[in-house]
Amino acid sequence: MFEEGARLKAEHGAGNVFDFSLGNPNLEPPEIFRKVLKDTVTSLAGTDHGYMPNIGYLHVRKSVAEYLCKEHHVQISENDVIMTCGAAGALNVILKAILDPGDEVITLAPYFVEYQFYADNHGGILKTVPTKPDFSLDLKAIHAAITEKTKAVLINSPNNPTGQVYSKDSLDELGTLLKAKGKRLNRTLYLISDEPYRKVIYEGQTVPSIFNSYNESIIATSYSKDISIPGERIGYLVVHPGALFKEELIGGMALANRILGFVNAPALMQRVVASLQGASADISAYARKRDLLCDGLANCGYDFIKPPGAFYLFPKTPVPDDVAFVKELQKELILTVPGSGFGGPGHFRIAFCVDDETIINALPGFKRTMEKYK
Amino acid sequence: MFEEGARLKAEHGAGNVFDFSLGNPNLEPPEIFRKVLKDTVTSLAGTDHGYMPNIGYLHVRKSVAEYLCKEHHVQISENDVIMTCGAAGALNVILKAILDPGDEVITLAPYFVEYQFYADNHGGILKTVPTKPDFSLDLKAIHAAITEKTKAVLINSPNNPTGQVYSKDSLDELGTLLKAKGKRLNRTLYLISDEPYRKVIYEGQTVPSIFNSYNESIIATSYSKDISIPGERIGYLVVHPGALFKEELIGGMALANRILGFVNAPALMQRVVASLQGASADISAYARKRDLLCDGLANCGYDFIKPPGAFYLFPKTPVPDDVAFVKELQKELILTVPGSGFGGPGHFRIAFCVDDETIINALPGFKRTMEKYK
Repeated sequence: MFEEGARLKAEHGAGNVFDFSLGNPNLEPPEIFRKVLKDTVTSLAGTDHGYMPNIGYLHVRKSVAEYLCKEHHVQISENDVIMTCGAAGALNVILKAILDPGDEVITLAPYFVEYQFYADNHGGILKTVPTKPDFSLDLKAIHAAITEKTKAVLINSPNNPTGQVYSKDSLDELGTLLKAKGKRLNRTLYLISDEPYRKVIYEGQTVPSIFNSYNESIIATSYSKDISIPGERIGYLVVHPGALFKEELIGGMALANRILGFVNAPALMQRVVASLQGASADISAYARKRDLLCDGLANCGYDFIKPPGAFYLFPKTPVPDDVAFVKELQKELILTVPGSGFGGPGHFRIAFCVDDETIINALPGFKRTMEKYK
Repeated sequence: MFEEGARLKAEHGAGNVFDFSLGNPNLEPPEIFRKVLKDTVTSLAGTDHGYMPNIGYLHVRKSVAEYLCKEHHVQISENDVIMTCGAAGALNVILKAILDPGDEVITLAPYFVEYQFYADNHGGILKTVPTKPDFSLDLKAIHAAITEKTKAVLINSPNNPTGQVYSKDSLDELGTLLKAKGKRLNRTLYLISDEPYRKVIYEGQTVPSIFNSYNESIIATSYSKDISIPGERIGYLVVHPGALFKEELIGGMALANRILGFVNAPALMQRVVASLQGASADISAYARKRDLLCDGLANCGYDFIKPPGAFYLFPKTPVPDDVAFVKELQKELILTVPGSGFGGPGHFRIAFCVDDETIINALPGFKRTMEKYK
């Protein structure tokens, strides 16, 4: 996609190609990020770039834990936190630590495509379970999918590609289900929440914490979207302080962080984010883009759930063949991604982390394409 | 080891514990590193922390390739280079890309302990082959170890834990052997060189390039030891420009970098090292420490190969049980690592990337311990 976009831009001029294909946040990091980065670099001693424990600097983990106590209303300590190379690093570390060969990881479709690889990397099998038509949790479907091979349920809220946020009630039900099923199967079933979009949330909504719904839970996240620094690969994982095998989990994940070749999260960025707990880029800009896009597409006759979070819209395609529809949009130089790649056929993903002009100027093309199907 | 060291230091006072157990470079980065880091941070735009292609920034890969042309006397282009999260990241990316389940990776004992994990992470099996008593390549032993399951030979020169550097002649012989064996087995046998210590080299010696000995070769390295920034996780891999399946290798490794969760090497440090090609910390300080240690231990009756590179010494233990000997040293508050952990029983590893005083003040303890065995 990255390269197809580049090719089309070279051919038609960048201003004439409407690239909604990439989840690359286009907002500037908050001003405080640049200040803290400069101050950190100025105050560093030369040896401050050396190895530290694989789980990260103590003072950084303390700062993260302190913030998480407020965010999740659970008493989290520095011993529950491992600094990682982004959320992608965190998820690989978690799965390496918990999976035995052939173990199943349940995820909810539509889902982030990389999960397939992350499970496979560590001998696991990704099993996808559909959500309801509005992309909310389908507890019955999850119930039916759990077997004696299930090791974890992996959720992503706010979701990529749908923008959906799972409600507190549904997470409570999921927690109850996993507890009961785990007891029946005599096996700990983990709930893993991948939540890099936690702070990308609209209209005063909140993202409920899985830590309030289930003890055997692990959160993976990053600063990539919060403060718009995805290239820096800085994030963390945190284990529920009440998890039954918490110490073994942390020990296993510290080892996994080392032996998978991450070794540790990048030193300088660890120091920087220690002073940026709770900071975020200007999310109101994403809110404006979301409104522009949703209002515009509604006027063109597109059918979609207005996303409560993240910067993705996942409309229905007017025909079942989403790949064909995405190709039609491409004739208008509008780049989007077919939903079938996310386990959501009959839909397509629009990443609206783009300039307002890109949205405004693409609307006529979106309209013409839809009209072909009427 | 890290924690045992911390415990002993808390108990006895840091100045009374002689910790030679960790390969954590104790030198400051060169002054140019701090300057470039400050300049880079000052000149960055906010969006310069975003995603870039998984293989890294074009301008960074160009800068690396230009330097490598001079270092290896081979025409290397930016298309042969992938920026990685250190050498550990590079090795995992390489092995993920080339290994099929059950494939064997041959490495030469004594060897860096993490290789066992790196091969296993990707379904491979590490097969260790001894070196000669002076830790140089034993071509006959390598010849005998290659089977129809062999996919790669992984070398590390200058070596951790021995400090040995493989000669040009022996690498030429190894290249010839792999070519002949590969032809016979109708299979490409890769030679992988892990060389983060390339610039840590003494007395005007040089580290011959595997690129001059064999085309099917890949180098993994980092800036961790060169410029003393191991916590920043920045390195790269480079494929021989004449490798038969070069494009497929680079494509596979770009994908591996993404799906293993590295995604890309940290953005800021990529930009920094672009301006630091060929820079290194003050290696003469390591040379001084090496002489202090070697002269001192020779006077105490220790038997060892004076290492031509890296910052490790791998002496023989006066008794076959190296674990017992290391425990005896520990009674003198001298922390070292038993050789058997590196596949080199009857030896122990001393990491001399420590203060000169640590070496000087440890010598009486080294002497008393040796005298117990006489």
